[in-house]
Amino acid sequence: MNQIDKVLSFIVEIEKLKDVQRKTRPVGLKRYENSAEHSWHVCLSALMLKDYANDDINIDRVIKMLLIHDLGEIDAGDTIIYASETQELKDEEASGINRILSLLPEGKGEEYMRLWLEFEAGETPDAIYAKAIDRVPPLLHNLHDNGHSWKKNDVPKEKVLTLNSRIAKGSDELWSNLKEKLEKAGDKGFFA
Amino acid sequence: MNQIDKVLSFIVEIEKLKDVQRKTRPVGLKRYENSAEHSWHVCLSALMLKDYANDDINIDRVIKMLLIHDLGEIDAGDTIIYASETQELKDEEASGINRILSLLPEGKGEEYMRLWLEFEAGETPDAIYAKAIDRVPPLLHNLHDNGHSWKKNDVPKEKVLTLNSRIAKGSDELWSNLKEKLEKAGDKGFFA
Repeated sequence: MNQIDKVLSFIVEIEKLKDVQRKTRPVGLKRYENSAEHSWHVCLSALMLKDYANDDINIDRVIKMLLIHDLGEIDAGDTIIYASETQELKDEEASGINRILSLLPEGKGEEYMRLWLEFEAGETPDAIYAKAIDRVPPLLHNLHDNGHSWKKNDVPKEKVLTLNSRIAKGSDELWSNLKEKLEKAGDKGFFA
Repeated sequence: MNQIDKVLSFIVEIEKLKDVQRKTRPVGLKRYENSAEHSWHVCLSALMLKDYANDDINIDRVIKMLLIHDLGEIDAGDTIIYASETQELKDEEASGINRILSLLPEGKGEEYMRLWLEFEAGETPDAIYAKAIDRVPPLLHNLHDNGHSWKKNDVPKEKVLTLNSRIAKGSDELWSNLKEKLEKAGDKGFFA
């Protein structure tokens, strides 16, 4: 297969992310979100919120991370962040993205595999910020949907606050804003 | 409204792109694509095909262009490239994206409005490449779907070849590859 055909086969393979269903519904829609449209949404969210990052970040790297961050779900499926993430699932996602990046021409996938591993480890400023932003749209979905996915998946307020407090690692200002909204959602009975 | 709330209202507003239906179906799916998942797909396609661009391009600018390129469709809807694009429709898209970018904090939207206008004009190397890549996934969809959208929208082979030959302005190598695939699709009766 020639080089361009290899890239085209990658482009066709990643179409499958459009069929991976997530646990929240886009604001105003009665269907669940898929991981491809989510990936677009977090990229644009990261771009527009970049001035609120705690650390100096490279937004171009962050966007690339977020473009690929869910590719492992094509093989492994989406998991709600409130479920405990097993080592087995992490391995399945890693081998999934590795399989997909292997479709690219020789030597092209490694750079993106490293970027994905950096995102997963969540230790560099870029990865910390990217992971923080990844949590924002699902919170907004629930806040605009009477806590639909929190109630459906039996997630209490304390769990939502504890798990999402990691947003503060990427942006204190953003977390402070969202925490206030979550407190108000508690008063309205949005949690399980 | 404080600054972060303005960005969050933008993030919620652009959710509507997930409900804008396009004219082709993702490979393997029996539903039509929406413009949000398409936007993700073209960003990643542009990234992985960047080595085949005719000119020196700034891939980070190209990705930002493609992240926002369809936002005007929230107000104007999607139009198949084979339909003639009226000035009225172009104006509707421009005022649509302007409205959406105006939700951002003071002074933040202008940069992206300029980027969108550059994309629309299609004259700089970045815009020429971005516009070329924007045409690739719909071709792949039709090539993997027996020409479903070409037949349904009554598009003959010559029209597909003529309109998509503009891909060559962004990448001769890519167009040469796709043109060969389109010729073969003609032999299989994929066109109207």
